[in-house]
Amino acid sequence: MTEKKGIKIVTIGGGSSYTPELIEGFIKRYDSLPISELWLVDIPEGEDKLNTVGALAQRMVEEAGVPMKIHLTLDRKEALKGADFVTTQFRVGLLDARAKDERIPLKYNVIGQETNGPGGLFKGLRTIPVILDIVQDMEELCPNAWLINFTNPAGMVTEAIYRHSNWRKVVGLCNVPVGMKMGVAQMLDVDADRVHIDFAGLNHMVYGLNIYLDGENVTETVIKKLTSGEASMTMSNIMDLGWQPEFLQSLGVLPCPYHRYYYQTGRMLEKELEEAADKGTRAEVVQALENDLFELYKDENLRGKPEQLEKRGGAYYSDAACNLIDSLYNDRKDIQPVNTMNNGAIASIPNDSAVEVNCVITKDGPKPLAVGDLPVATRGLVQEIKSFERVASEAAVTGDYKTGLLAMTINPLVPSDHVAKEIFDEMLEAHKDYLPQFRHLEVTQ
Amino acid sequence: MTEKKGIKIVTIGGGSSYTPELIEGFIKRYDSLPISELWLVDIPEGEDKLNTVGALAQRMVEEAGVPMKIHLTLDRKEALKGADFVTTQFRVGLLDARAKDERIPLKYNVIGQETNGPGGLFKGLRTIPVILDIVQDMEELCPNAWLINFTNPAGMVTEAIYRHSNWRKVVGLCNVPVGMKMGVAQMLDVDADRVHIDFAGLNHMVYGLNIYLDGENVTETVIKKLTSGEASMTMSNIMDLGWQPEFLQSLGVLPCPYHRYYYQTGRMLEKELEEAADKGTRAEVVQALENDLFELYKDENLRGKPEQLEKRGGAYYSDAACNLIDSLYNDRKDIQPVNTMNNGAIASIPNDSAVEVNCVITKDGPKPLAVGDLPVATRGLVQEIKSFERVASEAAVTGDYKTGLLAMTINPLVPSDHVAKEIFDEMLEAHKDYLPQFRHLEVTQ
Amino acid sequence: MTEKKGIKIVTIGGGSSYTPELIEGFIKRYDSLPISELWLVDIPEGEDKLNTVGALAQRMVEEAGVPMKIHLTLDRKEALKGADFVTTQFRVGLLDARAKDERIPLKYNVIGQETNGPGGLFKGLRTIPVILDIVQDMEELCPNAWLINFTNPAGMVTEAIYRHSNWRKVVGLCNVPVGMKMGVAQMLDVDADRVHIDFAGLNHMVYGLNIYLDGENVTETVIKKLTSGEASMTMSNIMDLGWQPEFLQSLGVLPCPYHRYYYQTGRMLEKELEEAADKGTRAEVVQALENDLFELYKDENLRGKPEQLEKRGGAYYSDAACNLIDSLYNDRKDIQPVNTMNNGAIASIPNDSAVEVNCVITKDGPKPLAVGDLPVATRGLVQEIKSFERVASEAAVTGDYKTGLLAMTINPLVPSDHVAKEIFDEMLEAHKDYLPQFRHLEVTQ
Amino acid sequence: MTEKKGIKIVTIGGGSSYTPELIEGFIKRYDSLPISELWLVDIPEGEDKLNTVGALAQRMVEEAGVPMKIHLTLDRKEALKGADFVTTQFRVGLLDARAKDERIPLKYNVIGQETNGPGGLFKGLRTIPVILDIVQDMEELCPNAWLINFTNPAGMVTEAIYRHSNWRKVVGLCNVPVGMKMGVAQMLDVDADRVHIDFAGLNHMVYGLNIYLDGENVTETVIKKLTSGEASMTMSNIMDLGWQPEFLQSLGVLPCPYHRYYYQTGRMLEKELEEAADKGTRAEVVQALENDLFELYKDENLRGKPEQLEKRGGAYYSDAACNLIDSLYNDRKDIQPVNTMNNGAIASIPNDSAVEVNCVITKDGPKPLAVGDLPVATRGLVQEIKSFERVASEAAVTGDYKTGLLAMTINPLVPSDHVAKEIFDEMLEAHKDYLPQFRHLEVTQ
Ligand SMILES: [Mn+2]
Ligand SMILES: [Mn+2]
Ligand SMILES: [Mn+2]
Ligand SMILES: [Mn+2]
Repeated sequence: MTEKKGIKIVTIGGGSSYTPELIEGFIKRYDSLPISELWLVDIPEGEDKLNTVGALAQRMVEEAGVPMKIHLTLDRKEALKGADFVTTQFRVGLLDARAKDERIPLKYNVIGQETNGPGGLFKGLRTIPVILDIVQDMEELCPNAWLINFTNPAGMVTEAIYRHSNWRKVVGLCNVPVGMKMGVAQMLDVDADRVHIDFAGLNHMVYGLNIYLDGENVTETVIKKLTSGEASMTMSNIMDLGWQPEFLQSLGVLPCPYHRYYYQTGRMLEKELEEAADKGTRAEVVQALENDLFELYKDENLRGKPEQLEKRGGAYYSDAACNLIDSLYNDRKDIQPVNTMNNGAIASIPNDSAVEVNCVITKDGPKPLAVGDLPVATRGLVQEIKSFERVASEAAVTGDYKTGLLAMTINPLVPSDHVAKEIFDEMLEAHKDYLPQFRHLEVTQ
Repeated sequence: MTEKKGIKIVTIGGGSSYTPELIEGFIKRYDSLPISELWLVDIPEGEDKLNTVGALAQRMVEEAGVPMKIHLTLDRKEALKGADFVTTQFRVGLLDARAKDERIPLKYNVIGQETNGPGGLFKGLRTIPVILDIVQDMEELCPNAWLINFTNPAGMVTEAIYRHSNWRKVVGLCNVPVGMKMGVAQMLDVDADRVHIDFAGLNHMVYGLNIYLDGENVTETVIKKLTSGEASMTMSNIMDLGWQPEFLQSLGVLPCPYHRYYYQTGRMLEKELEEAADKGTRAEVVQALENDLFELYKDENLRGKPEQLEKRGGAYYSDAACNLIDSLYNDRKDIQPVNTMNNGAIASIPNDSAVEVNCVITKDGPKPLAVGDLPVATRGLVQEIKSFERVASEAAVTGDYKTGLLAMTINPLVPSDHVAKEIFDEMLEAHKDYLPQFRHLEVTQ
Repeated sequence: MTEKKGIKIVTIGGGSSYTPELIEGFIKRYDSLPISELWLVDIPEGEDKLNTVGALAQRMVEEAGVPMKIHLTLDRKEALKGADFVTTQFRVGLLDARAKDERIPLKYNVIGQETNGPGGLFKGLRTIPVILDIVQDMEELCPNAWLINFTNPAGMVTEAIYRHSNWRKVVGLCNVPVGMKMGVAQMLDVDADRVHIDFAGLNHMVYGLNIYLDGENVTETVIKKLTSGEASMTMSNIMDLGWQPEFLQSLGVLPCPYHRYYYQTGRMLEKELEEAADKGTRAEVVQALENDLFELYKDENLRGKPEQLEKRGGAYYSDAACNLIDSLYNDRKDIQPVNTMNNGAIASIPNDSAVEVNCVITKDGPKPLAVGDLPVATRGLVQEIKSFERVASEAAVTGDYKTGLLAMTINPLVPSDHVAKEIFDEMLEAHKDYLPQFRHLEVTQ
Repeated sequence: MTEKKGIKIVTIGGGSSYTPELIEGFIKRYDSLPISELWLVDIPEGEDKLNTVGALAQRMVEEAGVPMKIHLTLDRKEALKGADFVTTQFRVGLLDARAKDERIPLKYNVIGQETNGPGGLFKGLRTIPVILDIVQDMEELCPNAWLINFTNPAGMVTEAIYRHSNWRKVVGLCNVPVGMKMGVAQMLDVDADRVHIDFAGLNHMVYGLNIYLDGENVTETVIKKLTSGEASMTMSNIMDLGWQPEFLQSLGVLPCPYHRYYYQTGRMLEKELEEAADKGTRAEVVQALENDLFELYKDENLRGKPEQLEKRGGAYYSDAACNLIDSLYNDRKDIQPVNTMNNGAIASIPNDSAVEVNCVITKDGPKPLAVGDLPVATRGLVQEIKSFERVASEAAVTGDYKTGLLAMTINPLVPSDHVAKEIFDEMLEAHKDYLPQFRHLEVTQ
């Protein structure tokens, strides 16, 4: 495609506090990934943040001396025209909505979990219609572009695109796997590029099936270490509770940080209740961090990514995103864990569903490596989340009350159908401004 | 086989209070199922009960005037020689063990659930080695016999036979599906033989995918009724809590009574805690019922099945068992829901795993009807229980501590790996007399 | 549905010489299958035959004294209105077209095989668009009716309906399996109802996986007999060449008569060449038989099915058809081998493809019995024919030249791509009047 | 493993004329693949050739100045001790046996096809027991080594190892895919490293599903070119007959040279008959070439691979082999098409069967890329050859006459069961010295 003409990238939700990460990554890779135009798109409510972040981006590019033109716009259609890559990192309803995703379930002694839990359901209900709109625009305005989706719940969103549109040039991306790899490298005290992990599962439900150091399988060693108390591995936005050693040894694979919500539900709930009472939910903590960040961004002397951004939880975000785009553009055929269509790679998950799995990244898209079946002990949980994602995306598209309630009820964090209904009803009301597809209910109920 | 020579049936655990049900069923069907010998086998600890029940059986047969010879023995091998059908209904550790299966988890605010829950895990650990012993005896003494297993956890036991022996002439049997059918017939106020249900799932995790009245699909009507408050359907040993109507309507299939443990976990736990405090666990209630029953059985004037047996929870047990044996013997090719090898009948469950599904019952065994895939929303839970059954059976055979703990942790009723370990350790200690395969741990721990 | 109102059946291709078979079957089953209206539909070119057969049908009904009203019409839409069952037994292009299907390939030393061979491809190309038209009419005029398709190639036609329409109430029917069962019964010299065969495969490519006598597996015995020279089993329209004994013993399953075209290709070709030179192709022989039959049918004294009809090759045709309709109507739940959607019944054939397999016949349609996988040695041939059927149906719908040629080339009877093209081109020209979907080629070629 | 100690490679069938190719490859890659010991093993009958080739190898190594020690031995066990890689390239019965594999079928107007045809069956029957012996030795003497099998029929041999041993560290290798890639590069007149092909299928039955130039999909262009007469692509040992253009365009994927035997059976047979009459079968031609080569090898002044070796048909053989070993040793994670366990990579082929498919080559072995399902039109043929390979390997291991005959009969090149028996019997007799597993038949027949 794009023969030597320079790459056009569009970032939807460009006013996000994460954007400087991305800019930094693009600048570093300019030689192999010659971006000529970067369009940051946002909605009117985000115009101030867009301008702040856009100005910082402009300064970063100038400082680096790369000829990348930054465009700021509220007009998505204008931006999409002829794009090569479209990245999405928006948040429908902003952090306020996330706070509700977390707060409301806690009232019922249920973890909100803003990606694969009750909170994630509502995040999906708000986000999926918007993503499907973007896809519709892309079909018209940039039919050859790749959609790189970072917007959570990334697994559910990718599933929804596969199930409810004909668009196939989509990759769902998450920084959890790269974080796990970095964590293992740190634990083993080796350079990260000596570590390789066979990732497979779903978004935020991904396992490291095998861990290699210089090609030698060291899975057992790593798990021993992880359960010995010597070392731990987590992400800044998930509390480190410690795994029950014999359980993890017997599971025999490396869980991701989000697995704690499912394997340690009781303990995680207690912690979340404590923290919410104490310093607020994660959304509220993040809101404070964001406010600080935007204060920093406004400083006209700031001409690079500020260190404080790392606390935000998006570690390796830039690397994951830029490496993916670079490999797609340059047909690198390296291995990266992304969300793509299963196509038989993981047995017992339908071939046409989204999975998070190691792929060879080519110009023609990610090609998943066949891993056969997941370990017996992990299949149930994975299947539960996959079913949840599928039912949830159907509810997002149809706006059907019962389908949404069904998704809530089958979520493994929700203890009963009656509690499911209470949470569902309260959240439906709380988020109604962002759920136009459910508006038809208001008349009849 | 058995050309006109009369059928030999062996019932292991023959001293069970259920036995009169079975005797009654055999007597009723004597014309088509001419049993010449019925051997009731038990262990020395059960000798008294065996004699009591055996004497009642003898009186029932005499009363009916059928030439069926009743043998009572503690020598399993003698009994098995040349058998045509072997039924198993024993309980390793008796009701005392079941009481522990229920009591110990409750201490940790976890439902015991003696078949698919933490209690079921330990019931499986106690039972599977005994079943595999029986299978070994059968290979030698009656290689052409059918093993009809009623012993719970019937799904896990059937899975264990498939995974850990070469014996294939086994059918796992449960009265839950026939109970569901009877419940539906009652609700619709029609004769049961006008109702047909497409059953599919796992033991105690079976769904009615479609319900037919005179061949017409009435699933929606039934579910509406069930959720309307007009009608309810349950079994005497499971409390009727009422389903959340919209959830069940959206699920779109008929759950079995045991599904309440999973879809209404919180409420069921409360109820169980209450009841345990109040009148004791189900095991304790049953123990009292059993004592009463055996008092009745001792009465030499009793020459039939006493009415009180129906409270015991084994409704339709005799019908399910006798119909199955009759159809196997007479090659009836009628449809019955049993536990058998999947063989592709239910997509996404491995072909070589046990499922509970409608089968055509032939002399050559049950032939499952292909149902394709289960509804999306049900797959996760089904897969969780299947994984639990598989890991649990492996633990039962290997006596591996970590595998057992893994099974406990992945059970959907268990809220965290740490609680799993506490429950597992306490139960392992409590049941140690019946878990010889785990005895090696005592030295090393 | 049809509450007591009497059943309405529509037979498309009603002027077929087979019709008296069907009438006889309906008359015999009137008590359980109370047909009030039977509409025989044909096209203008078939009006004379329709009148002749219709008059005979009328006399048969009168003779039997059943109140079944016979309607004759050339107006398909009028007939379809409110039908309960629609049967199809038409032949686009009549026997002339079949003669070409057989003759043209023979010119290239290739067997025509009017169902699964090169001839069958063209029969499919002529028939499928007509069937899809009928389905479209049914969607409008009798959306609750069952379509019972006898028109060959029945497998390809059923596949086409699944792939290229949304109609699901279709059953493809063939008398080959019942013929195999009758043949086995004869060979064993027992009543047919003591024999049961596990049928699985594709139409005219169906295997008897297991053969039972009174429920005992006698497969090996039957195959031994079949290969011993003592007994043979065939159908009147397929020459009996004799199987190579050790091959058949090793295959271990009962092939159907059509399998000879594939396992004995060389010999069958020789025979067909000889016969074609000698007494004409099968189509030509049948044409003569048909002429004789219609002469008989015209006799106003004939008030029943004439014996001569049996030579026509449709033995058991009436039984297969009437039993199927009876079981669908009366929800009999008996086992019949029919063409239906696989749904997992046969592993390694896609779930959404048509297979010929034992089914439980219910009011809600056929429910296939899961057979797991076919024997390794049979899978390749079955997969070849399934691929042929799928590519052929696509060509029938799209009228795409290359797709049609592809179907011809991958047919196992066709020895090379170059010969495929020669045959394809000659047949395309020969049948052009009946292939409107390919007419667009005439301009461009 | 092999920490810095230098790699030990064992080549079974070391006296092959191909060996200098391999030596050249090892020398070129010495820096990244530091082989300290190369053991060439052969059987007593091959001692002369072993010494000739071994001496040349020695001179090549000296000339190159690499410290690789060449060992020549007839003692396989001595050689295997502590090996890191074992390559196999032997030929049981030598070229004489191959000549029979080709000649005997031709007598019956059947193509011999020494890999996937009747000839290949007998090559498999001779080879598989020897390979399984080697595997047994490896289990004892070098349990961590990789077995790299070049011996044909490579697909059947790999399948046999998976089905009939517990050895999993095996890769089957063929130079056909690299030849296809080189052919495409030539046709497009570009450097080969700009071309990438998605290979999938079976050995000698592999398709190029997609062809990329610089990451852009050019499959259609290549197929157009291939069918336009402008360009052709073949291998020196397969005659170039030209594809029927519309067929290949409609197939839509790149066939391998061996596909001609199946898609152009009639024409290939004619050619083979002509050539056999004219200049002898391929085995006979190769025999002459080999004699010439060994004459050259004896020349003590020859210190490199002679050019004439290229005529032998093993083009790219050295590259394929050395690249594979290099990537396994160095954990390169590049993509190579090899024969490995399917593991879900190709739908509708059993997960535990061997396939030839693009893999990421890691120190932990090849990891196949999931390709989903093959195009509909190709599945039948692929399934036929897979079934043939499976039945053939069973016959090779069991020495069962009927299983062998079954394999012969289901081979797509064999026109009927009767001809199958004739060929099978004649070949069984002709090869009896190399088929000890079938010797038991001699008494009974
Ligand atoms: Mn993420
Ligand atoms: Mn039960
Ligand atoms: Mn037929
Ligand atoms: Mn090869």
